[in-house]
Amino acid sequence: MKKKTDFRTEVREMARKAKEASYRLAQLSTTSKNKALLEMAEDLERHQQHLIEENRKDLASGEKAHLSFSLIDRLRLTPSVIQGMAEGLREVARLPDPVGEVLRMWKRPNGLMVGKMRIPIGVIGLIYESRPNVTADASGLCFKAGNSVLLRGGSEAFHSNQAIGQILRKILSKRGLPEEAIQIFPHTGREAIQEMLQLEEEIDLIIPRGGEELIRFVTNHSKIPVIKHYKGVCHIFVDESADLKMAIRICLNAKVQRPGVCNAMETLLVHEKVASRFLPRMATVLRKEGVELRGCSRTKKVLPGIKEAREEDWFQEYLDLILSIKVVKGIEEAVQHMARFGSFHTEAIITSDYQNAQKFLKEVNSSCVLVNASTRFNDGFELGLGAEIGISTSKFHAFGPMGLEELTTTKFIVYGEGQIRK
Amino acid sequence: MKKKTDFRTEVREMARKAKEASYRLAQLSTTSKNKALLEMAEDLERHQQHLIEENRKDLASGEKAHLSFSLIDRLRLTPSVIQGMAEGLREVARLPDPVGEVLRMWKRPNGLMVGKMRIPIGVIGLIYESRPNVTADASGLCFKAGNSVLLRGGSEAFHSNQAIGQILRKILSKRGLPEEAIQIFPHTGREAIQEMLQLEEEIDLIIPRGGEELIRFVTNHSKIPVIKHYKGVCHIFVDESADLKMAIRICLNAKVQRPGVCNAMETLLVHEKVASRFLPRMATVLRKEGVELRGCSRTKKVLPGIKEAREEDWFQEYLDLILSIKVVKGIEEAVQHMARFGSFHTEAIITSDYQNAQKFLKEVNSSCVLVNASTRFNDGFELGLGAEIGISTSKFHAFGPMGLEELTTTKFIVYGEGQIRK
Repeated sequence: MKKKTDFRTEVREMARKAKEASYRLAQLSTTSKNKALLEMAEDLERHQQHLIEENRKDLASGEKAHLSFSLIDRLRLTPSVIQGMAEGLREVARLPDPVGEVLRMWKRPNGLMVGKMRIPIGVIGLIYESRPNVTADASGLCFKAGNSVLLRGGSEAFHSNQAIGQILRKILSKRGLPEEAIQIFPHTGREAIQEMLQLEEEIDLIIPRGGEELIRFVTNHSKIPVIKHYKGVCHIFVDESADLKMAIRICLNAKVQRPGVCNAMETLLVHEKVASRFLPRMATVLRKEGVELRGCSRTKKVLPGIKEAREEDWFQEYLDLILSIKVVKGIEEAVQHMARFGSFHTEAIITSDYQNAQKFLKEVNSSCVLVNASTRFNDGFELGLGAEIGISTSKFHAFGPMGLEELTTTKFIVYGEGQIRK
Repeated sequence: MKKKTDFRTEVREMARKAKEASYRLAQLSTTSKNKALLEMAEDLERHQQHLIEENRKDLASGEKAHLSFSLIDRLRLTPSVIQGMAEGLREVARLPDPVGEVLRMWKRPNGLMVGKMRIPIGVIGLIYESRPNVTADASGLCFKAGNSVLLRGGSEAFHSNQAIGQILRKILSKRGLPEEAIQIFPHTGREAIQEMLQLEEEIDLIIPRGGEELIRFVTNHSKIPVIKHYKGVCHIFVDESADLKMAIRICLNAKVQRPGVCNAMETLLVHEKVASRFLPRMATVLRKEGVELRGCSRTKKVLPGIKEAREEDWFQEYLDLILSIKVVKGIEEAVQHMARFGSFHTEAIITSDYQNAQKFLKEVNSSCVLVNASTRFNDGFELGLGAEIGISTSKFHAFGPMGLEELTTTKFIVYGEGQIRK
């Protein structure tokens, strides 16, 4: 075990090198970045056996430590997971390069041409748990957007992350690119994280991916801006004018297609005028999929025998086959309920009414607001960003899925002809 | 003196009310916001005498406390300063409303129409010192962008800030708008700031305006994202091919037009091939304006007798009539010097060479990069943003001047026809 001061020096040195690499990275041509990404993909596939062997060490320690079945499952590298990582890198290579894009230009009365140009953020610190494929996915996205990345994965995936990182870095050095653009933390303790969170001169952004406790720890200790991803208490409001067949199809999809993810529906709000027609049919379909229903008193009148929803249910992110249901007087009450109990992640309305569709889109300020579509579409790939490094619930810099563009910032550029300020 | 627990409750209560007000604020029509802004302007002018009287209390305490002349000067409310505040609010009323703007929309293969819509950030905490006009300027910008604002001014401007705030709030309540959208801190101690910086559930963004020490204090204590504004060590590089008359005009403007501000030039870099022709003429003009020159050894060969620039000079934000000068081999060395010693605030190149102009714009990643124009143009009004709440040196969310758009974020909106996720 190293001394604390060694930790510090090492983390600082990593960050300093990452910063230095970021200057070169910012100037790389798109072609050069894409070639490296494609070679990384190829090498991950070529070294599949090695990755699986390194992963076995993590699995063995995990089993010794009695990790849960689902944790072990997320930790496992199979040929198809490795194939997925490679495909992810190829997909990122195919995406347009955001760096250097000029968003718009305008002319000032004095003739200055002013524009906003996308540039990399600089150095990104990613703190994550279990899934080793994040190492490749996040490295690919950060690299394409011209950012250096410091990856601090969980101790449970230590050998897997190191092995993936080595493959990616080897391609960088082989191609004469700065190897320090991708660095895997050799320490997995919280002290190393804490040290990293102090380095505001070197690191520009921290993205924690994991449980709420980890995110709170990071937020509380960081001097560097943090993009948070808290829970998703997502709602669907079935309006009076909804096409009820569509409503059933969408609600079913939003609840059961993958109940353990942040964009799954947790609370269903139903207009009182359609509750008695809609809820029994909806309940039948949901029960067939094993969903437990909890309802308000008015829901219980239509669906007697279901559990009563208590106040804490409205705040709850079940991440499970449980759904709370509330009958509301109309869109106003629905919107108020979402603002009071929701988490501003994803909300949808099912309606055939033009005014209500527009009102909902305007008044609900969640990261993604949908009309007549499943909440499950709040995802970088599904929304057309190509890929995502996470879904931000911070309103700051990026709100919602973060793709390549959200991994950049902008600078002002000015073409002059000798202008001076009066 | 109140007890600490009272502070806490009070600050929390303010933030909670600000959050509540922000929901209503986000839905206000542009017309309703503009009418309020125009009435605020009118009332500031109408109550000029009252404002000047309240300001006198602050001036009297300031003199008792032996504040510096320049501090007292910045604190003073004169008829023309009050007129300026009113004009500022009218200007903000004239600017386009960013809220509700859809940046772009695209169609997904499954028919979903996806777009990004601007929405307010929510609640902004502004921490500032001395100048009471910031109270009106910042309130106007935040209000127009649909944000609630908590204003914590310095103790030296307490009565002035309270008086301005009362006038603005009275208009809100008169028009049936949420008064809690603009709140002035009744406490000016650091404890109140510290308490505010904990309230991550209620406050979305903190903007500190003031000295480096204040900004560091805020960054170190905040759980909420902070937009920093550190120093501006701005450079101009005079290239070999520069029109030397233009170079002299621009450098003079950048150094002396207002030497005490963040976008004034602090270091001049000169291509070695024009140093002997350019520097003597430049020095004559600058000396006429009382500028002290400090140069590298090669500069001193051309300008014997000037002070030698030491390593710390290259890091220095003089904010004064002092200029450090370095002779460089060319654009490469100039760019490297800026990255090593600069603060990524504002840099300009004077050149007639097309390739070097483009190279400079591409490779220098400061918040504003100019070709053949004065660094003094890095300012929200000059760049065409209409007004600014500050210049951010954080690369995050907003880099450079922050106008109305930078006081918003975006949400994803989706128009569907019953789509579910496969």
